[in-house]
Amino acid sequence: MRVAYRIWLDNDGKAFGEGPYRLLKGIEKTGSLRQAAAEQCISYRKAWLILKDIEKRLGFRILERQVGGVSGGGSVLTAPGKSLMKRYERFRAEANKALEQIFRKHFRS
Amino acid sequence: MRVAYRIWLDNDGKAFGEGPYRLLKGIEKTGSLRQAAAEQCISYRKAWLILKDIEKRLGFRILERQVGGVSGGGSVLTAPGKSLMKRYERFRAEANKALEQIFRKHFRS
Repeated sequence: MRVAYRIWLDNDGKAFGEGPYRLLKGIEKTGSLRQAAAEQCISYRKAWLILKDIEKRLGFRILERQVGGVSGGGSVLTAPGKSLMKRYERFRAEANKALEQIFRKHFRS
Repeated sequence: MRVAYRIWLDNDGKAFGEGPYRLLKGIEKTGSLRQAAAEQCISYRKAWLILKDIEKRLGFRILERQVGGVSGGGSVLTAPGKSLMKRYERFRAEANKALEQIFRKHFRS
């Protein structure tokens, strides 16, 4: 037996969690919302709507579109978007550690 | 913004979580699986199947049927079933406290 969980940030509805995190991670890696969406097996339009909803709920912009340039443009994360990712990563790691410990305390002793 | 979560015990699939906990709590209170199921707005049959599944996944019996008597019989929790409830209550309370603290640390500072 093990502990399992889903955890997310909420602001009158889901504001940020594992799915959006992976999407941002993909954008950071590929520099492209389209590619990041494909990696998560969701449409470009759905990915875009997810990000717009997060931006609305959190009150800051996450995505910065870059137009033109050698690569023909793409998407990068804003500074608050990057900060959100980093904070979420640390939050998730600590939450996981704490939940495992609390689980062991109550169910393995 | 706040942290939100679902947490459950897993053993090759969901073994025990908030829904089953409420069902057991209702059985403890009413002494009747039928009444406990009604309070959770699920059918008697569904409640029974949920409990059978939990018993299979956890490897011990939760429900003890009492036949006859003045009240015409009913359901009570076994000692391991009561222990599961108590451990889950303490686990949930501590998990909630820890997650709130970790959330504040990363998103309120």
